[in-house]
Amino acid sequence: MATVNTSTDRTEQRARLSSLMESLGLDAVVLSSYQAVSYFAGTHIMTQVSLPDRLEFFVLFGDGSPALLLCSIETGMAKTQTDIDEIAEYTEFVDVPAEAAAKLLAQRGVTSGRIGFEARRLHSEAQADLRRVLPDVELVGIDDALEQLQSVKTPSEIDMLRFAAESTLAAVLGAAASAKPGDTELSVCAEITSRLMGAGGIYNFMVFGSGGRAIGAHVEATDQPLREGAIWRIDLGARFFETINSDLARVGVVGEPSSRQEEVVSALHAIQHAGYEAMEPGRPACDVFFAVKNEYQRQRMPFSMPHVGHGLGIGLHEAPILEPGNRTPLAAGMVLNVEPMVILPDEGECYHTEDLAVVTPEGYELLTPPQEALIRIGD
Amino acid sequence: MATVNTSTDRTEQRARLSSLMESLGLDAVVLSSYQAVSYFAGTHIMTQVSLPDRLEFFVLFGDGSPALLLCSIETGMAKTQTDIDEIAEYTEFVDVPAEAAAKLLAQRGVTSGRIGFEARRLHSEAQADLRRVLPDVELVGIDDALEQLQSVKTPSEIDMLRFAAESTLAAVLGAAASAKPGDTELSVCAEITSRLMGAGGIYNFMVFGSGGRAIGAHVEATDQPLREGAIWRIDLGARFFETINSDLARVGVVGEPSSRQEEVVSALHAIQHAGYEAMEPGRPACDVFFAVKNEYQRQRMPFSMPHVGHGLGIGLHEAPILEPGNRTPLAAGMVLNVEPMVILPDEGECYHTEDLAVVTPEGYELLTPPQEALIRIGD
Repeated sequence: MATVNTSTDRTEQRARLSSLMESLGLDAVVLSSYQAVSYFAGTHIMTQVSLPDRLEFFVLFGDGSPALLLCSIETGMAKTQTDIDEIAEYTEFVDVPAEAAAKLLAQRGVTSGRIGFEARRLHSEAQADLRRVLPDVELVGIDDALEQLQSVKTPSEIDMLRFAAESTLAAVLGAAASAKPGDTELSVCAEITSRLMGAGGIYNFMVFGSGGRAIGAHVEATDQPLREGAIWRIDLGARFFETINSDLARVGVVGEPSSRQEEVVSALHAIQHAGYEAMEPGRPACDVFFAVKNEYQRQRMPFSMPHVGHGLGIGLHEAPILEPGNRTPLAAGMVLNVEPMVILPDEGECYHTEDLAVVTPEGYELLTPPQEALIRIGD
Repeated sequence: MATVNTSTDRTEQRARLSSLMESLGLDAVVLSSYQAVSYFAGTHIMTQVSLPDRLEFFVLFGDGSPALLLCSIETGMAKTQTDIDEIAEYTEFVDVPAEAAAKLLAQRGVTSGRIGFEARRLHSEAQADLRRVLPDVELVGIDDALEQLQSVKTPSEIDMLRFAAESTLAAVLGAAASAKPGDTELSVCAEITSRLMGAGGIYNFMVFGSGGRAIGAHVEATDQPLREGAIWRIDLGARFFETINSDLARVGVVGEPSSRQEEVVSALHAIQHAGYEAMEPGRPACDVFFAVKNEYQRQRMPFSMPHVGHGLGIGLHEAPILEPGNRTPLAAGMVLNVEPMVILPDEGECYHTEDLAVVTPEGYELLTPPQEALIRIGD
């Protein structure tokens, strides 16, 4: 990992947020999601995901200075992760987090005006609490603007995303090469997980299904053995450098593929490639969606995807989502996947593949080489 | 796994919810959290946790009949998991989920009255959407009542929790027995994960730290090697049977423990035991907190925990939380952990242990045997 640039500059990220505040006429922002707090404070507080009742807040004031308001259980660890000096804390089950937030804001003179918050992340009760303790404040949802701000990655973020993507692909290919027909789905996934951890990757999610089970969108491995001739698919993500996600999908076969199976995966490859070819700065995100959709038709494959890919970073689905209504212009530095899925209910098979690409001034650069053929187990 | 009773009766769980609706004067409930949807519908939709923008709803009508409103991506899989026949779907990025929910409610005549929802789970924007499309409906937060309803486990839930707890402990003890001084934290965690998967357990979270790093509340493994004499601690959870959590903590030492280290873990054991001894139907949850707190003082150990344990099931922290203000009476069938942690900043050490117990008519029954001594690596 020594060659990966991990020097993310939170000061620069907070400066972007200050500019956003200015353009939206905000007196402060109070952010509460795992993604936003990690992004602007450099923390990795896993309970923000696993314990939705435990709230943590990142605050940015109008003068550009940041603060954190943390559950006291998390403070000690967070101090080792963040460069932010001003850290307030509340005691869980004793204090109301919103009241502690109001106090922190009042200490800096913010008792009225407009405060930006994450309307799609903060739960209704906490929002009602904030309204109660900040009666003269207008709470303004800034979710879309925040996502936009985080969609263009810095060089170090791209470096970490590349390492994460490469390590995840290596784990899948390595485990598949050592697997045999008759191994259970769970044993293959255990081998992949072990290889991920060897590269510093922490398990995040792992969809794995073989045969008919693979059709379910987000099924997990079972003790079902891999049968000869079965298509299997995996869609997995791990976290590297604490907060940076990978997200990769591959499809394979146990034993020799049939010519029909080879044909489908060739079509899948062409479909995915068409998506990348639509990536260029300035083109709208939906162009990738329609390029993929059109290629499904050319390949005579059934299409029913609401989106064909998305941004990736600290969040698993980041902006821009590659969906038909998204007119966001692509920009150099965005990191996007294209993940076509072909479901053939009559065959009882599901094909899925997914690789990341970074948008460059010239077009795109792939972070992992897309698959052109089925990955074979026990050929 | 053949001997584990996994036959959870969702009909019975929905009947409990119907009774709750009646007592609260609700015309319907619309639930949106991973925990509630899994509990009442029997689904396991992982994106409810990983993709907070993708909403899924479980609806129960006044006549006791259930329905699901799902993102179309998840419908196929969910149908293989749930016994609910009435499934509506919405298309992501095209439909507004709240509008689809209003339509589903209107089809059954619910356009006014009182609807229960999860105020601490549904995000503010979705709540605002529901208010807009259901202007004549009063939305009533029922979070506490829902948690209460889920806190007493059925025999099959207890059976699954027991299997999950035993398998998790076995994975930790097995990996520790095969580890050596000098192994990295990550390699130990990879071995534990592999053993968990062998028992059907899917990684959920794994706090692991050795030496001074162990003090951080929720640190993860790194490639740091295990040094002789270092205290290490693990706090981990996996999901079994798709949705049932384990949650276990253990503390160990690399090589021979010092007499001081042995003394601290003995105190930790006495503290944990004092918590279990306060478990009895009818006693308030806070009694366990105070029993633990008092034993810290008797053992002359520093105490700073906002809570000393919690319920466990589909949620990682379920009711009742063992915190000082919680007067909820304990009841037979509740499954609770007691997880004292001793932080010694001067020694740069953190001790933590955690086991589940089920409250019985007579008192409690442990699901795993608590540790009385440090787990040794390479003794």
